[in-house]
Amino acid sequence: MRIVTTTEELREAIRDSSANTVGFVPTMGYLHSGHTTLFDHARKQNDLVVASIFVNPTQFGPNEDFEVYPRDPEGDAAKCRAHGVRLLFMPSVAEVYPDGHATTVTVDHLTTELCGRFRPGHFAGVATVVAKLFCMVGSQRAYFGEKDFQQLAVIRRMARDLNIPTRVIGIPTIREDDGLARSSRNVYLSDEERAVALSLATALRATRAAHRAGERSASALCDLLAAELTRHPTVALQYAELADPESLKLLRGTTLEAGQGARAIIALQLGRTRLIDNAAIDHDDPSFLTTRLGA
Amino acid sequence: MRIVTTTEELREAIRDSSANTVGFVPTMGYLHSGHTTLFDHARKQNDLVVASIFVNPTQFGPNEDFEVYPRDPEGDAAKCRAHGVRLLFMPSVAEVYPDGHATTVTVDHLTTELCGRFRPGHFAGVATVVAKLFCMVGSQRAYFGEKDFQQLAVIRRMARDLNIPTRVIGIPTIREDDGLARSSRNVYLSDEERAVALSLATALRATRAAHRAGERSASALCDLLAAELTRHPTVALQYAELADPESLKLLRGTTLEAGQGARAIIALQLGRTRLIDNAAIDHDDPSFLTTRLGA
Repeated sequence: MRIVTTTEELREAIRDSSANTVGFVPTMGYLHSGHTTLFDHARKQNDLVVASIFVNPTQFGPNEDFEVYPRDPEGDAAKCRAHGVRLLFMPSVAEVYPDGHATTVTVDHLTTELCGRFRPGHFAGVATVVAKLFCMVGSQRAYFGEKDFQQLAVIRRMARDLNIPTRVIGIPTIREDDGLARSSRNVYLSDEERAVALSLATALRATRAAHRAGERSASALCDLLAAELTRHPTVALQYAELADPESLKLLRGTTLEAGQGARAIIALQLGRTRLIDNAAIDHDDPSFLTTRLGA
Repeated sequence: MRIVTTTEELREAIRDSSANTVGFVPTMGYLHSGHTTLFDHARKQNDLVVASIFVNPTQFGPNEDFEVYPRDPEGDAAKCRAHGVRLLFMPSVAEVYPDGHATTVTVDHLTTELCGRFRPGHFAGVATVVAKLFCMVGSQRAYFGEKDFQQLAVIRRMARDLNIPTRVIGIPTIREDDGLARSSRNVYLSDEERAVALSLATALRATRAAHRAGERSASALCDLLAAELTRHPTVALQYAELADPESLKLLRGTTLEAGQGARAIIALQLGRTRLIDNAAIDHDDPSFLTTRLGA
């Protein structure tokens, strides 16, 4: 595996590889099995797997955790190597945003609700850096986890709108045995918080069960989701919504139709940690909330 | 020459051409010698010349001339053919902005002054459509006239910031014998207005002469420029500024240094027609304001 730090080296290495198909996995590092699963998918579908590790400052708010975001470049490189990444891009902030950088990519509509309400500017930061990385790498495919479902939808929309010829592929969230979605930020959780964090998966399961039992009112399902999440007094709920999986339009006030793919999406603050999760609640998916490492 | 109307056909035709180098000239049509000169440059430097004709609605303000912008698709196609264009892309508005399109590219700093003050949203429209076209075509080079100098600077910044691997090449403005810059909008001018429109070139010449005579105060040069432009009572001056050629920072209040490439940039309204022009006023360029067809 080769590690490069500049766009020029990156492009040259991709050109020199003579790969017909390139699969790209952009990450912020502190890699876990959610990420390595993306590498595994990319390796199955492409000649060359390129990964990037870049903690992008422009997608963090002023009171968010940019400064303390967990980092482990050596451990990350070993995980990349073990999962078939052949080219790892680790640029500096100055390489990505040189002096005079003045361009921003914004995606309307999909970014106004859900996390967009709580993280102003976040998705502009994400859309801009991912557009840049896509243009740097020029891969046929790029892989993202479904855990940040809004991010996946925004990136898909951005790439399509800007006619970037990279196909955006979403991969199901990898979970712990008890259902907790893997996240680099789980390292922030105390033991007590780790136990309470299970409420995300529990609430998604309860909402899916209510749907299976016949509940078709989106508002009632959202209320159930919220009620399950706020059982614990330490949880500060940010939102609990059902949304259209492509447009992310909120479904409150509507009656669910068969197979529309209604996505339950939630975010909450637990102590100093912000947790998100989501699931399609109207699919007969036997692996619901059970995608584990190697599954 | 082949004419295509969809992104898919465009990409396929470029792939099938097996060209090693592609030169791209995006236009809004109603082609004149300013455009055909761009085709000629592209042909000299590339295996394949691709042009596009698309009157982009998102770069026109609500009170601007989108509806009446002059169009001549058949004449344009003949001019493309005669100047070595082998692939002409003429998409519909729905092809470029399909339902659900939600992404905008904005460039800060360079767009706040000059035309940016008078055309809110214009440069976001330009940056977005050009980013899209660049990603569709994937050319090594793209050619723009220097006549819209701010547009050229914004596109250069956008392509560099988004890491789009297309080199943006500016080509000197083509002029009539009397110095009037060629523009598709010159067709709007009455005979009287056509005579008054000469004041743009006259004012640029006078400002350059003052600089050669030793004037180094940017403010004094701007004032002279404005005074020359407002001799005619029918002229509604929008701005007359000196700016840094890359950052477009206004130079009023500064003392010009040797060889800094100070660009005089002007815009005015003459009846229903908006006219722009610009020139580097501190270069010893013997072809100052004299670049004509075939020159």
